[in-house]
Order: sequence, then structure tokens, then C-alpha cells
Amino acid sequence: MSILVVGSVAYDGIKSPAGSVDRCLGGAATYFSLAASYFTQVRIVAVVGEDFSKQDEDILRSHKVDTRGIEHTKGKSFFWRGEYGENLNEAKTLETQLNVFQSFNPQVPAEYLDSDYLFLANIDPVLQGDVRRQMDGRVKLVGGDTMNYWITDPNHRQNLLETLKGVDVLLINDTEAKLLAGETSVPRAVQKVLRMGPRALVIKHGEYGATVFFKEDEFGGGRHPFRAPALPMDEVRDPTGAGDSFAGGFMGYVASQKKLDRETFKRAMFYGGVMGSFAVERFGTERLQSLTREEIDARYQVFRELTHIG
Amino acid sequence: MSILVVGSVAYDGIKSPAGSVDRCLGGAATYFSLAASYFTQVRIVAVVGEDFSKQDEDILRSHKVDTRGIEHTKGKSFFWRGEYGENLNEAKTLETQLNVFQSFNPQVPAEYLDSDYLFLANIDPVLQGDVRRQMDGRVKLVGGDTMNYWITDPNHRQNLLETLKGVDVLLINDTEAKLLAGETSVPRAVQKVLRMGPRALVIKHGEYGATVFFKEDEFGGGRHPFRAPALPMDEVRDPTGAGDSFAGGFMGYVASQKKLDRETFKRAMFYGGVMGSFAVERFGTERLQSLTREEIDARYQVFRELTHIG
Repeated sequence: MSILVVGSVAYDGIKSPAGSVDRCLGGAATYFSLAASYFTQVRIVAVVGEDFSKQDEDILRSHKVDTRGIEHTKGKSFFWRGEYGENLNEAKTLETQLNVFQSFNPQVPAEYLDSDYLFLANIDPVLQGDVRRQMDGRVKLVGGDTMNYWITDPNHRQNLLETLKGVDVLLINDTEAKLLAGETSVPRAVQKVLRMGPRALVIKHGEYGATVFFKEDEFGGGRHPFRAPALPMDEVRDPTGAGDSFAGGFMGYVASQKKLDRETFKRAMFYGGVMGSFAVERFGTERLQSLTREEIDARYQVFRELTHIG
Repeated sequence: MSILVVGSVAYDGIKSPAGSVDRCLGGAATYFSLAASYFTQVRIVAVVGEDFSKQDEDILRSHKVDTRGIEHTKGKSFFWRGEYGENLNEAKTLETQLNVFQSFNPQVPAEYLDSDYLFLANIDPVLQGDVRRQMDGRVKLVGGDTMNYWITDPNHRQNLLETLKGVDVLLINDTEAKLLAGETSVPRAVQKVLRMGPRALVIKHGEYGATVFFKEDEFGGGRHPFRAPALPMDEVRDPTGAGDSFAGGFMGYVASQKKLDRETFKRAMFYGGVMGSFAVERFGTERLQSLTREEIDARYQVFRELTHIG
């Protein structure tokens, strides 16, 4: 079934201990779309500037991503430049040019209105809420992401809390979960966030994988959270987009399944980790562009061997 | 089969956000022994002072731990006092009195020489090496632990590297692994440490569980590491001894099995995590004193549900 994603399509400049690129295709919606495209049909709502190249749009199209919702407008595309130190867990942002994103007013094209799934990538919660409302009553499941900036700024926070009421599955990291809940312990934070709206909460632990927690009685019921690993990787070249690729694998797999139960979510956690692990092997979206479903399923098996007994 | 542990039997003063105790039974060998006692017969080599109470020795004896190797000597027992902040991951040491440990010269009693397994808890690598030599040619598998102090101090480091040559399974945390290898990345550190002697390396990730890495062709062969989770716990009251309890569950389970293959190690990783998760629920060794094998196996199932698909 089809999934609609709203978020950034952008250019990135990236430096890591493994090398650097001055400018490459990036943006949360781009990583998400490419990762999800191996599982289901993806539609993007985003905005780009006059510098956005046909070749880059063709990369998305070659993965059957519907780009009709990408608005082309005057000015330059969103640009982000960052650097990773020896500890690859966190990027140091060197430059952020919002450019055309500054006046982004996302409109869901009529052709997208029958989308079954929706993912609100990390953008202003007001815009996330707008798109959510445009899809009201139509979608089966809404996933969402956010970041520290929207969580901690008092005005944005109010908007975020409003938007979270319409998000079924929130995907954030440990730090974001603690900040959002105002708690120092993740288990306590989980309980608070699950009272803010989301029926499931995926907490990403970077190199240690991710855990999904459920509101009781949701998605078939059951008491337990589920933890998926990350791969112990020798060769992380560029961590950019790992979280968005996780979300793409996770939501893409969910959208490809008939049943929205806990077993589906468990496998989705693995596919999320798998797509994240591919994304970081090369700079930008390079690795995500050239995968096969066979490679993806082979790595899924590696994740299984890494965690399963007997 | 029986397992011999050499390490500290001590008293601890502990403060955490959940409360405090002025003085309770502690020490790496104590936590290890109690955790391992649910799986196999344990023998301790340690030293205590005149303040060591009969009641505390009876706690060990009631778990069928052989305490004949605990040397009683003039002076006071090893004493440690520490405090945990809101982030329970690391203790701030407020006081360390080595006392009788200062002149500890571990002697393996003749009755212990037929032990099948040996665990070298975190003490001076010279003493670890001494005990290792006393058991030469007898034991089937040697486990070991160490800490930053022995790793980074140039003199101790030399002794540690010598001792590591005789350790089959080393259990340390991420930071210790990176320090030991002089690497900033865990996967690279793993490869280096596996060239120092150990045939298997268990890296503990605190709240994120632990991963075991194998030297190729060892323990039945196979390419993949194995990752066990930790429980997302609401109620960590006192993290003291979590690592030693992990080691006790891990080595105790291994010692209870006939085959030293990778499936045994996988289950041992789970039992390690299980015993660590019990240890932190109460202050000191309280929770480890009162467990049943049924409770342990029930939590093993929880770990399984947390990680296994289908």
C-alpha cells in the first residue's frame, strides 16, 4: 500500500573521518523515500529550489517514488553542512540554509489523498499538523519524527504536543524521548510519551539498535516491548540519514503488510535497522540507491542470527 | 561442573536516588558467586578481615558456595563507598579502603584444584595471573574481568596483557574495550582485543545489553557476534554488582552445560543479562539472595520475547 512522506528534500555537505563530499542529495524525506521504496510505493510532499537537478529527481523516480508532490519554486534548495568526529554518533552542524524551506506550505496533491500511510518527517510541527489534517480520516497509520529544537523551544513545543495527538507511531532517540517527557530515565519517559498521543513509541539507540514500546491493548495487545539490534559495524562512513532510513524501512515494511499487529512491528524494527545499516556504509544516499531486495533480506538474516537463539 | 572465582568479598556503602545503605555485603566475587550459584557449584578464593560476619558467610554457604578458600586475616575487610546520580550508569567512588586486600596473596586450596571453570574477577592482574597458573592444565575455560585502572596505568597494563594470554573469555564494557585496544571504535577494538589472547570477548553496554564476539573458528565456528538485550527497567535501585552478576550468570550457565559451543554462549549471554537485571532491583546482593530458578527462567523468557520474532 502507498505511503506519503512530508519532509525535506535537500543538499548536504558532509565531512567524516572516512572522507567528505561538498554537495550531495540529502534530506529526511529523500532518505525515507529511498529506504521505503524497497517495500512499497512512496509519494513525497516537499519543496525544492531552482538548483534541484533533474538527475536527482530521477534518482527518486527510478525507485518508483512519486515526485509530483515536490513543489519547485524560486530560490535555492535547503542546504545542510555538517561534520562528524571520531565518535560518529553526533554531527556538528556547520551551516544550515533553510532557503525555499522558509516559506514551505505543504499541499497534498489530490492524487495523493488515497495514501494509506503517512510519515511526518522532522519539520516544523505546525507543518506536520497541516499535512496530518489534510489526510484526516483517510490514513490507516501515521508515523512521525521530531528533534530537540521543536521539543525544547516553548512555542514550538506547544505545537508539537498538539501534533503528537495525531501521530500513531513516534520515532525518536533516547535523548529526545527524555527531553520530550522531562524525565532522566528512558522507561519513565516512555510511559509519559505514550500518554501524549502515540500508540507506539520507537526509541532509537544509535549503535545499540532500537526499542519499540506499545500502549497497552494497542496493535493486538501484549505486555512486552521489542528490541532490535544495530549491526556492530566496522565501516560507518557517513551516519547522515541513518534515522530517516530506519524510519523508511520501518514504515515501508509496515505499509507492505496486511496485518498491523505486533509481529509486523517486530519485523519492521528489523527492516528499519537493516536500512539504517546500509545507509551509513557510503556517503549520502549512495548505498540506498543501489540495493536489491535480496541484499536487504540477507542482512535481515544477519540481524536475526545476531539476536536469535536456537 | 564446579567453578572457582577469585576476587573481592567486601563491604559496601551505597547511595542512589532510590535510597542508601551504610554497609552491606558486597564485592565482585560475592555478586559473581551468588549469581552463578543458581546454575552450578561455586568456590571462592578471597580474603576478609575480622569484621567479616558469620551471617554474611552463611549467606554464601546457604547457596552452597564453598567458602573454604576465603582467608580470614587480621584487620578489616575491603570497604567501598560510592554514590549514583540520576544517570545510574556510573558510580562516583567516595571511599576505597583496601584493608586486608592490600597484602592479598591468593592461594587455591587443594580441594579446589579439580575445578573445571575459573573466573578471574576484577583484581590486580598479577594476582589474576597467579591464580591462573595455580590452575594451569586443569580448567576447561577461564573467564576474566578487568577495569580502567589496570588498563591505563603503564606498569599494571604490562601485567594485564600477560594475564590476558591465559583468559579464554574476557568480559568488559565498551569504554574498557576501547581503552584496552587504544581505539575509538568498538568494532576495531574488538578485533585487537581478540588478538591479545581471549577467544571470546563479551562487551557490556550497560542499559543496552551486551555483545559477544568470537575469534574465528573458536567454539564451533561461525561468522557472527551475538547480542543480548538488557531489560528496559523502571526500577533500577542500585546498579552495584550488575557486571559481576552478569559474569556470574554467564559463567555459571556455561559451567552447567556439556557443550562449549556458540548456542551455549548465546543462552549464557541471556542468563548473564537476567542475573544483572535481578541484581539491580534491590540494594546490594539482597535480590540475588532470594531468587528461584523458576523466577530466573521466567525472566529468561521475557528476554526472549523482547528480542525474538515469531
